[in-house]
Amino acid sequence: MGVHDDAGFRRVHASALPVTGAWRPGDPPGARRFLRLPADRPFVLEGGGLIEGGVDIAYETWGRLRPDASNAVLVCHAITGDSHVAGPLLDGHKTPGWWAPLVGPGRALDTDDVFVVCVNVLGGCQGTTGPAHPHPADGKPWGSRFPVVSIRDMVRTQAAVADHLGVARWRSVVGGSMGGMQVLEWATMYPERVGSIVPIATCAAATAQQIGWWSTGRRIIRNDPEWRGGDYYDAEPGGGPHEGLALARMVSQITFRTDDVFTDRFGRAAVEPLQGGFSLWQRFEVERYLEYHGDKLTRRFDANSYVLLSKAMDLHDIGRGRGGVEAAVARMQGPVLAVGVSSDFLYPSYQSREVVDLAIAAGLRSEYAEIDSAHGHDAFLLEVDQVAEILTKFLSSLEVDP
Amino acid sequence: MGVHDDAGFRRVHASALPVTGAWRPGDPPGARRFLRLPADRPFVLEGGGLIEGGVDIAYETWGRLRPDASNAVLVCHAITGDSHVAGPLLDGHKTPGWWAPLVGPGRALDTDDVFVVCVNVLGGCQGTTGPAHPHPADGKPWGSRFPVVSIRDMVRTQAAVADHLGVARWRSVVGGSMGGMQVLEWATMYPERVGSIVPIATCAAATAQQIGWWSTGRRIIRNDPEWRGGDYYDAEPGGGPHEGLALARMVSQITFRTDDVFTDRFGRAAVEPLQGGFSLWQRFEVERYLEYHGDKLTRRFDANSYVLLSKAMDLHDIGRGRGGVEAAVARMQGPVLAVGVSSDFLYPSYQSREVVDLAIAAGLRSEYAEIDSAHGHDAFLLEVDQVAEILTKFLSSLEVDP
Repeated sequence: MGVHDDAGFRRVHASALPVTGAWRPGDPPGARRFLRLPADRPFVLEGGGLIEGGVDIAYETWGRLRPDASNAVLVCHAITGDSHVAGPLLDGHKTPGWWAPLVGPGRALDTDDVFVVCVNVLGGCQGTTGPAHPHPADGKPWGSRFPVVSIRDMVRTQAAVADHLGVARWRSVVGGSMGGMQVLEWATMYPERVGSIVPIATCAAATAQQIGWWSTGRRIIRNDPEWRGGDYYDAEPGGGPHEGLALARMVSQITFRTDDVFTDRFGRAAVEPLQGGFSLWQRFEVERYLEYHGDKLTRRFDANSYVLLSKAMDLHDIGRGRGGVEAAVARMQGPVLAVGVSSDFLYPSYQSREVVDLAIAAGLRSEYAEIDSAHGHDAFLLEVDQVAEILTKFLSSLEVDP
Repeated sequence: MGVHDDAGFRRVHASALPVTGAWRPGDPPGARRFLRLPADRPFVLEGGGLIEGGVDIAYETWGRLRPDASNAVLVCHAITGDSHVAGPLLDGHKTPGWWAPLVGPGRALDTDDVFVVCVNVLGGCQGTTGPAHPHPADGKPWGSRFPVVSIRDMVRTQAAVADHLGVARWRSVVGGSMGGMQVLEWATMYPERVGSIVPIATCAAATAQQIGWWSTGRRIIRNDPEWRGGDYYDAEPGGGPHEGLALARMVSQITFRTDDVFTDRFGRAAVEPLQGGFSLWQRFEVERYLEYHGDKLTRRFDANSYVLLSKAMDLHDIGRGRGGVEAAVARMQGPVLAVGVSSDFLYPSYQSREVVDLAIAAGLRSEYAEIDSAHGHDAFLLEVDQVAEILTKFLSSLEVDP
């Protein structure tokens, strides 16, 4: 992978981006806005940590909020996602919209009808306050001082955005993977504020295997000498724990896809040919692919956020402190559409079925839908036609004011 | 994981062990012996590399070889295995026999009947020449100078042991995982020397996903600053790329087992309790388990051997240079018993079925047997009762001289 040509994430971390001001009814859609929570009192986290000096919350919206605020849909993003669900590359966005085909006039999230909101998660690095942001005490990045956040903490910041926008109740809360964890927490924490939920390729509580994958990724980053305990923001240009982050991503990238797809796409094709003799770092195509994905992430994502958000995923358990998962689901009001991916081995579809079974047992309207795909976990991002069909059918089935 | 109390692998690398001399008929069983290949010419490897100065080959035997040498069974070990298939901890062996319940009087590999041989693989670190051995030019460890070895190179050293012992033809060649790769190469390279084969939880050619897992493990080791390009043998006591090796092992350990078993065994149990507040390095039980396995490996295994042997596994393709896997299988003489594990997602059972299908298509007697287990890949080591039953049935079905 080598040293990066550019200075990597650090030079463009979110705190350096302009605060464009909070959204007001009538504003054009698609530009990122910031809500700043009051700085005069700390944001107290579930795990006991404090964020002092205020919290910036980056969010984006598409479509128009009705005067009665009845048409708002919250989309929650995955670990390395951001608020940019749809739209082209913009200033401050290094990637085009990650669910772009789903948002727009006539699309599954039909902006002629619904008002779509997405909030960058707390602890992230795409606008919302995270480890790369300045600490109020000294103006230097939080780094290792940033406290552990939970999915519940993320949801609380999203609730603040809802309050700010005047959304008392979402028509639906939708998201995949870590986004789906937020979806399930929304329905558990604020059942009266959630008209329906669509958790996709996710779980009610992280399993030991999931903890195994993500926690090992964290240790890989920790073992990068440039991580320096999380305080690497003063590294030379190009420095930072890029290798560790890339390696953690490479492991994850395997878990995001499948054996079948890798075989079809790469087989045993070699980048450096074997005919001239073997060498230790000769690569097969799949290695180049994994290196590409690892390297790509380091150009747009902060290692500390990766560490922090993956920890939040491991801590994810809607039953914690609530008498278990079953009791948590019983708080929900539904409807619940849980969506699994047939070939997902990271968040296997049985976990989505379990959510449905628990919801039905709790007397909720609930159903299971499956994305039929060979692509594995990432199918929730790749199989947009199937996701669109599933979402459209479900959203149109909801009883809403015309 | 932290710094190790002991000096780790380096102090006991195989070159420091006494050469006990080659086995001779009548010798007692179970002690490790060494065969030294001639030092007057280099051992030329498939990939073009040379091992000069002779090759030490460590092997062990159990039972007695008949005068006609008709009762020899070769067992091939997996990546971090060794020649110590059975028997207690011995001088030079840091682990008890890895298939001990299968070897002995009246057992599946019945030492009243068969003569069992296991050879430590070339490039390994349990007796046979590998990167920790002294280079003939300067007496310092080979380190980064050690050439890439292939499964075929391993098999050639095993053929030298067979020659030395006077075994013209193995009654059977048996092994799991990387051992199974050697088994398949034996039948392809030396069909006339192999009476039957039992490849277990393995494949005819490594898939892209398998290459993905192992190659990422190598990169994790490479990124450990203490790996130093492979030349770390002069590190301070306790030094060396232990963290990198442990992390690579942790990823592998997840792939060796299953979601179900992790859930049953660990669930979401925490080592450091969550009640007192969250912290980044608080661990769930599964993390402690993975750390334990990672750390354990660093106490008995050399990182360079791990890098080298995993590369050999990625290079594994019985069809390379032979017109493809189908043509390679057509060289075999059978019988072929391929054994899969129902829950193996690292070497999925379809790969064993494919070997059987190809063998049948080539006109060989071939059958598939499955280890029914929730344990995943490691079931070939854990489900010894099932392996014993499968092996016993197959071996007793072979036409052998009474």
